Amino acid sequence: MVKGSQSFVFESQPVIISSATVGGPLEAEGPLSGDIDILHEDPYIGQDSFEKAEKLMLEEAAMKALEKAGVNRDEVGVFISGDLINQIISSSFAARTIGIPYLGIYGACSSSMEGLIIAASLVDGQKVRYVLTGASSHNNSAERQYRYPNEYGAQKPPTSQWTVTGAGVCLLASEGQGPKVTAATIGRIVDMGITDPFNMGAAMAPAAVDTIETHFKDLGRGPDYYDLIVTGDLGAVGHKIALDKFKEKGININENIFKDCGMMIYDREKQPQVFAGASGCASSAVTIYGHLLNEMRKGNIKRLLAVATGALHSPLSYQQKESIPGIAHAVAIEM
Amino acid sequence: MVKGSQSFVFESQPVIISSATVGGPLEAEGPLSGDIDILHEDPYIGQDSFEKAEKLMLEEAAMKALEKAGVNRDEVGVFISGDLINQIISSSFAARTIGIPYLGIYGACSSSMEGLIIAASLVDGQKVRYVLTGASSHNNSAERQYRYPNEYGAQKPPTSQWTVTGAGVCLLASEGQGPKVTAATIGRIVDMGITDPFNMGAAMAPAAVDTIETHFKDLGRGPDYYDLIVTGDLGAVGHKIALDKFKEKGININENIFKDCGMMIYDREKQPQVFAGASGCASSAVTIYGHLLNEMRKGNIKRLLAVATGALHSPLSYQQKESIPGIAHAVAIEM
Repeated sequence: MVKGSQSFVFESQPVIISSATVGGPLEAEGPLSGDIDILHEDPYIGQDSFEKAEKLMLEEAAMKALEKAGVNRDEVGVFISGDLINQIISSSFAARTIGIPYLGIYGACSSSMEGLIIAASLVDGQKVRYVLTGASSHNNSAERQYRYPNEYGAQKPPTSQWTVTGAGVCLLASEGQGPKVTAATIGRIVDMGITDPFNMGAAMAPAAVDTIETHFKDLGRGPDYYDLIVTGDLGAVGHKIALDKFKEKGININENIFKDCGMMIYDREKQPQVFAGASGCASSAVTIYGHLLNEMRKGNIKRLLAVATGALHSPLSYQQKESIPGIAHAVAIEM
Repeated sequence: MVKGSQSFVFESQPVIISSATVGGPLEAEGPLSGDIDILHEDPYIGQDSFEKAEKLMLEEAAMKALEKAGVNRDEVGVFISGDLINQIISSSFAARTIGIPYLGIYGACSSSMEGLIIAASLVDGQKVRYVLTGASSHNNSAERQYRYPNEYGAQKPPTSQWTVTGAGVCLLASEGQGPKVTAATIGRIVDMGITDPFNMGAAMAPAAVDTIETHFKDLGRGPDYYDLIVTGDLGAVGHKIALDKFKEKGININENIFKDCGMMIYDREKQPQVFAGASGCASSAVTIYGHLLNEMRKGNIKRLLAVATGALHSPLSYQQKESIPGIAHAVAIEM
């Protein structure tokens, strides 16, 4: 409510009563596979297109989250979801299957935390008792839409990132057991004039730093408030830029507590095809709603600041010589 | 909060303290032009692409709404917007210019009311004092993305609709003078198996009926509660289908109080190129945030149910032989 503030607290502390994640073949070989509920060897998952496979993963994650919590679909007031495919058809067609009232969002790879902020606002405001929110991406559907048909085998620079094949969903409730959503910071667009779509980490890093700095300022907190501050998909290049920017600004963030989902979900030595790391809506959705919430449930993390990062460009804006607008939304999750 | 309910009331009744609209050349010739704040003769608005022209209209509407209310940008907590262009670049690039923390949404032509629901939830929950929310579309940017390059001069069937060139934005506040947002119903996806993208009114009409019926049931109201119930862009074909469906269901809605923005913004006799009427995010955004809110301010409408309708398909889902999922979100606005 403070003028100029981008942050607010959720007084009622909505609870993430369950979460579920789905992954593809490369995610199954990665270091976080033990925290992914459903793993698929076939990137088509038996469907006749990658887009339909992506939609199916989102449906699976949603149904699994409901199953874990023992909540029926008809008890859930809203399903909030976003993805990278034009007109977010993965989300909208999954919403058709799931049958829950639906709000579609688009924040590129920041969609996971954008959805959680809206979900927590609806639960906190006593609008609905349960909200399901998630995000998905698929390496093959993203590659052919944003870059080249996979069959071209085009070369990529080392700054490029690998879109995660997967989906992550969480079920938020007004009461129950689990990690609580306590505060949020809605990000502003930060555009440093970067135009290279093969270096999205660099385009998003300044937005992540801006949102984290704003979060600290608005809520009167420092980095030491959190056990872990995690960005969505900066990758190795963007992560280093973010660390350098914090140093420039005199914000002392220990590297041990500042990590990036894009550097956690794959083993870059054993999986060199991912280059600078992971990207895509599922990078943060799978890592946060899978591994990191599990770590919170085990007591290994008490206070998490989850900062999903998005590059809000399109192939058309690139062709029209626009730079890449970056955004980051932060959510404080506490056990 | 009731199980199975899709509706909720906003206890604090957030106020629309200002709104502003922008239109293109065809909108300037239409019957609602007197309620459009900024009219452009040139569909490029001096920009080098239709997409950049669309973005500019959204910026103009946002700045005009702020100017009317005498509110500075830095006082506004969130800008919420959606549009039809892939990766909603009109909204995201406008958000870059406007500089307000941003949540991008995608509900196709239901985006206007989706945005208003999220905005009202944030204001009602005392998360922010001011929220700016809007939507845009541009006939030429939509035509070339969804259908054919304009230069092809392809024939269209009489069921087809004309995407509105325009933008509409409103500024919501926790207190002030103006129409109040009192309740909302979040729509479920209703898909009747229609696959013809030149007949979107028919694809969306069942969703509109479902949401309106649910709204009445959830809140214990009948059609007589409202002076006007207006859908977003069903056009003449969809409007007739909706009326027939209400009759089938035994819901007695007088034709005088059930209208469609898509049939109001153009004069179909004098502007026959619009065929069945208007469509696009701006159909509801310009009509509701311009003409209808003005009618409320004049005292001619006291209770409005604004029901924005969306067709959540894409060119790719059409190619993959999917039908068109329809959705509709309803917002009760009272003076």
